[in-house]
Amino acid sequence: MGKYPTSPLAPAGFPDLPVIDGVRFAAAEAGVKYQGRLDVMLAEICEGASVAGAFTRSKTRSAPVLWCQENLALGPQPGKFAILVNSGNSNAFTGSNGQKAVQATADGVAAELGIHPRNVFPASTGVIGEPLPFDRITAKLAELHANLDETKGEFAARAIMTTDTFPKGAVASCDLGAPVKIAGFAKGSGMIAPDMATMLVYIFTDAKIAQPVLQALTTRTTDTTFNCITVDSDTSTSDSLVIAATGRAPMDEITSLDDPRAAVFADALHTVMLDLAHQVVRDGEGATKFVEITVKGAESEQAAKTIGLAIANSPLVKTAIAGEDPNWGRIVMAVGKSGEAADRDKLSIWFGDILVADKGWRSPDYREEDGAAYMKQAELKITTDVGVGTAQATVWTCDLTHGYISINADYRS
Amino acid sequence: MGKYPTSPLAPAGFPDLPVIDGVRFAAAEAGVKYQGRLDVMLAEICEGASVAGAFTRSKTRSAPVLWCQENLALGPQPGKFAILVNSGNSNAFTGSNGQKAVQATADGVAAELGIHPRNVFPASTGVIGEPLPFDRITAKLAELHANLDETKGEFAARAIMTTDTFPKGAVASCDLGAPVKIAGFAKGSGMIAPDMATMLVYIFTDAKIAQPVLQALTTRTTDTTFNCITVDSDTSTSDSLVIAATGRAPMDEITSLDDPRAAVFADALHTVMLDLAHQVVRDGEGATKFVEITVKGAESEQAAKTIGLAIANSPLVKTAIAGEDPNWGRIVMAVGKSGEAADRDKLSIWFGDILVADKGWRSPDYREEDGAAYMKQAELKITTDVGVGTAQATVWTCDLTHGYISINADYRS
Repeated sequence: MGKYPTSPLAPAGFPDLPVIDGVRFAAAEAGVKYQGRLDVMLAEICEGASVAGAFTRSKTRSAPVLWCQENLALGPQPGKFAILVNSGNSNAFTGSNGQKAVQATADGVAAELGIHPRNVFPASTGVIGEPLPFDRITAKLAELHANLDETKGEFAARAIMTTDTFPKGAVASCDLGAPVKIAGFAKGSGMIAPDMATMLVYIFTDAKIAQPVLQALTTRTTDTTFNCITVDSDTSTSDSLVIAATGRAPMDEITSLDDPRAAVFADALHTVMLDLAHQVVRDGEGATKFVEITVKGAESEQAAKTIGLAIANSPLVKTAIAGEDPNWGRIVMAVGKSGEAADRDKLSIWFGDILVADKGWRSPDYREEDGAAYMKQAELKITTDVGVGTAQATVWTCDLTHGYISINADYRS
Repeated sequence: MGKYPTSPLAPAGFPDLPVIDGVRFAAAEAGVKYQGRLDVMLAEICEGASVAGAFTRSKTRSAPVLWCQENLALGPQPGKFAILVNSGNSNAFTGSNGQKAVQATADGVAAELGIHPRNVFPASTGVIGEPLPFDRITAKLAELHANLDETKGEFAARAIMTTDTFPKGAVASCDLGAPVKIAGFAKGSGMIAPDMATMLVYIFTDAKIAQPVLQALTTRTTDTTFNCITVDSDTSTSDSLVIAATGRAPMDEITSLDDPRAAVFADALHTVMLDLAHQVVRDGEGATKFVEITVKGAESEQAAKTIGLAIANSPLVKTAIAGEDPNWGRIVMAVGKSGEAADRDKLSIWFGDILVADKGWRSPDYREEDGAAYMKQAELKITTDVGVGTAQATVWTCDLTHGYISINADYRS
C-alpha cells in the first residue's frame, strides 16, 4: 500500500461496480497490522441467497478456510449471510488459537447482524504464523454494521489488499430471462499459483440460481481462470473464493446445469473471474510483463495445462522474459521438465505470430532481431505445439524481476 | 568465467585429483562460443573399464544424452573408451543436425584414438537451440590426443564450466582388498533441479567392478546426492553423469551387490558425489547461502524428499533466506503446497538447533531475534517434522537473490 509503485500492467482504473440487490458492504481501519488504512471489510448478503466457494488445496490450510469449507458442507442456515475479511494477518498456522479467533469473529458478526455464525464466511490474509488480534476486528463490528451500504464495494476491495498495488474489480451482465448483474473483486499479488494462490475473491450477483448449480459452475470456472494463473509457483494457505447469488433478479430460478441459462450465466461468470485472475497476474510482485502461454498439440487438457504451468513457473523462462531475451531454448527446457508427453522433433514455438521453432528446429525464417523486438512489449503471447495430440490449454503469468526479490527479501523483517 | 565473481560459498580450492591408473585427460581452446578459454575436454579410459551413467529425465533430452544412453544400452564395444565434452553450446533442440554433430564428433574421436564410436560418451553444455559448430571441436582432436596426460583432470574440469564461478572436484579413497581411489569433477550452476540439472559429472576410479554393479551403485547414489539438490527448479536437457572404473587396482573384481566391498565402495562414491553436488549448489547462480533442508516424520522417503524440494524450490522461502528473514510461515506454506501428507497441528520447524514452531504453533520459547541472528550465517540448516510418519530425507539448495536475476536476465542477449 504505497510502499511499491502501482504495477505498470495495471488497468486504467477500478470499474464502477453496479449495485447488486441484496448485498451491502462496509470497510474500516481496525489496525490489525497496518495503520491508517482500511484493513477489514464486511459484506452482508440477503436471506435466501445461494453461496458457493472454491478454496486452496494446501495441506496446511488456514483456520478461516477450514471454517468456510465446513459452512458449505453443513449447508445454509436460516437468515442472512456475511463475509468478513481482514488484511495484515492470515491467521494461518496459529493452532487452536486460530480456530478460537475464527469462532470469536464469526460469533461477533452473528451477534451484530443477528444471523447464524455458520452463515459467516471469514478470511484473513497477510503474515502466516502470528496470532490474529481478533479483538481489534470485533471492536469494529458495530461501526461496520452501521456503515453497510450497497455502493461501497470499492472500499471493500481496497480493505483486503496486502502487497497489491491496485484494487481489482470486474463486472459483467447477462440476460437470464431478466437482466442479471455480476460484480466481483479480488486481492492477490504474490504466493500466487494454483490451487489456488494468495487470492481472495468475492463475487456477487442478483441471479436466482440454486446452490448446487452455482457451486458446480464456480468450480468449473475456477479451473480455467484462477487455477490457470501463477506468479511464483507458491500456493497460499488462505486462498478463498466466495460467490453469493442473491436471487433478487425477477427470473425463474436456475435449478439445473442443463438449463440453457446456466451456460449464459457461466459465460458472464467466466468473464468476471478471468478478468480478476488477469488483474492478479498484472499485479504480480515486481511484474513488468503480462504473459499468456498457450500449449497446443498435447495429449490432454490437463497435460497441456501442466506444460503451460511448467513454462510459466520456470525461473529461467521468467527471467529471460524480464530481460526481453527471446531465449526460446528455455521454453524447450520447461516443456521437457514438465514430465508430460512431447515430441522433441515436432515441437514448435511462436512468440506472438512469429514462428521461432518449427518442428524441432529453429525456423529458417526466424530472425533473432524479430524475437528481440517482440519481447520488448509489455503484453506477450507465447505458444507452443508439442506435437503429440490435439488438446490445448492457456495459462497466464508474469516475469521474474529484481522487484520480486526486493519485495520478498524484506517483506516481514 | 570471470564475468561474475567467485561464489562466496566456494570451497577453499580445487582438490589435488589423484592419478587414476588408466585415465588420461586433455583440454583445449576450440572457440565453440567462448574465446580465449578452455572449452573442450577429452578423457581417454583404458580397455576393460566398466562405464555407467545417469542422465536427465527431460522429455526434450539433447542429442548427446540420447547417444550416451544408447551406448549404455548397447553395452561396451572392444577397446578403449572416451569422454568428449564442450561448453558454450548444448547441442539441444537442434533436430537432425544435432544427431549429425554427435555422430561427427564421436566418429572423429574414434578415428583419432582408434576406438569404436559407440565407446565415445559426448556431452555439450551451454545455449540450447543453436547449431553446434562441431568442426571447431573435431579440428582440435589431434591436439587433444597429443596432450593426453593422467595429471590434467583440473584442466578438464575447467573446460566444461559455463556460468560456474569455480571448478568443482572431489576425491575419496577406500580399501577393497587393495587401496582404491575415486576422483570426480563436475560443472553446474543454474538450471539445477532433479532429475538431474544442468550438471555434467565425471567420476573415475581404479576399482575393479562389474558394469551392472557399478550402474546400480551409481543410480542409487545419484538419487541421494545429485537428485537431492536444486538451485532454481529448472531441469536441464543435457544432464549427464558418467563414471568409469578402470579395474587397474590389484583387487578381485566386485561382481555382486552382495559383495561387502560394494557397500564400502558405495560409501566412498557417495562421498565424492555428495561433495560435487554440494559444490554445484554452492555455485548456484547468485547464491549467498548454502541451505540444508531435512524433512522428518513423513509417510515415506519419497514424500519427505518431495516436501523438502517444495521448500527448497519455493521462491518465497528462497527470497526470505536471501533477506536473512526467519520467515517460517513460508516454510509452512511450502509444506502445504507439496501435496504430501502433513499434520498442520503436529508440524515443527527448527532453524539450526532453534525450535521455531512446535506442534502447529509458534514455540513459546522462540524469540524472533534468535531466528534473525541464525539467518545471518552463510550455511543454514532448516528442519521440519511433518508429524505423520517416520521417514526422512535431506535436500540442499541456495537462496534466490538479485544476482540470479542479473545472471539470467542477460545470459544470452
